[in-house]
Amino acid sequence: MRAFPGTPGTLTSLFLRITQCVFASGSIASMATDPSFSTITAFCYLIASMGLQVVWSFALAVLDGIALLKKKVLHNPVVISLFVVGDWVTAMLSLAAASSSAGIATLYFNDLGNCRFEEECRKYQLSVALAFLGWVSISISSLIMPWLFVAG
Amino acid sequence: MRAFPGTPGTLTSLFLRITQCVFASGSIASMATDPSFSTITAFCYLIASMGLQVVWSFALAVLDGIALLKKKVLHNPVVISLFVVGDWVTAMLSLAAASSSAGIATLYFNDLGNCRFEEECRKYQLSVALAFLGWVSISISSLIMPWLFVAG
Repeated sequence: MRAFPGTPGTLTSLFLRITQCVFASGSIASMATDPSFSTITAFCYLIASMGLQVVWSFALAVLDGIALLKKKVLHNPVVISLFVVGDWVTAMLSLAAASSSAGIATLYFNDLGNCRFEEECRKYQLSVALAFLGWVSISISSLIMPWLFVAG
Repeated sequence: MRAFPGTPGTLTSLFLRITQCVFASGSIASMATDPSFSTITAFCYLIASMGLQVVWSFALAVLDGIALLKKKVLHNPVVISLFVVGDWVTAMLSLAAASSSAGIATLYFNDLGNCRFEEECRKYQLSVALAFLGWVSISISSLIMPWLFVAG
C-alpha cells in the first residue's frame, strides 16, 4: 500500500481531520448558543451528528499526529478498513443531518416569507452551512480511504 | 471482471433497478397528488431528485433487460465507471432530498404538535418513507458497482 497525500499519518490527512473538527465544532457552537434549537428535532439531530463527527475526527487527528511524530505512515489494511467504514457512516449521518436542518432553515427563511427571530435564523443558517462544509471535508477523507486499497 | 449478483446485465441488477424506479415513482406520486407541496422548497427538491432517480434507474433497467435478452453480462470498465459515478451522485441527492423532507415532516408532525391538514401530512410521511426506501435500494447498487473493480 503506497503512501500518498491523505493516507493516515500524513500532513494532508491531519489537515483534513482538523478541518472536520473545526467545521463540526463551529456548527454545534452556532446552533447550541441559540436556546430555542431544542424544540426542533432536526436541529437536535444536527448537534448529535456533528458531535459524533467531532469525536471521530479528533480521535483520528490525534492518531495522525502521533504517526507524524513517529514518522510512520499508517497503512495496515485492517486499520484502513475501520477508517473507511467510520468515515462513510459519519459522512452519511452528517449529510442527512445537514440536509434536514437545511430543509427547515429554508422553510423559515424562504417559504414562510419571514423569519420571526432574525438573529436566531442567522445562527441556524451559519450552523447548516458549517455542517455542509464539514460534510465536504469528511467526504474527501472517505473518498481517499478506499482509493488506498485500489492504488495500493 | 467476474459476474456476480448485482453486475449490470444480471437478474439481481434488473430487480434492484425496478425497485428503485417503483419507490421513487411512489414517492413522487404521493407528494405530487397533494396540491400544497409546491409551497415548500424541500418538497419540490424531493420531487426533482426522485424524478432524476426514476430516469436514471429506468434507463439502467432497460440496459439490464437488453443485456439479459442477449444473455450478455456488461462488464466494460468504462461503462461500469459511468454507472458508479451516476449511482453515487443519484444516491447522494436522494439521501439529501429525503432527509430535508423528513426534517419538515417531523417538524409538522412532532415538533409543532399538531398537523393541520391530516391527510396531506400522511402523504408527506409516505412520500418521505418511500424516498428513503429508494435511497436504500440505490445505495445497494452503488456499493456493488465499486466492488466489481475490487473483486474483478
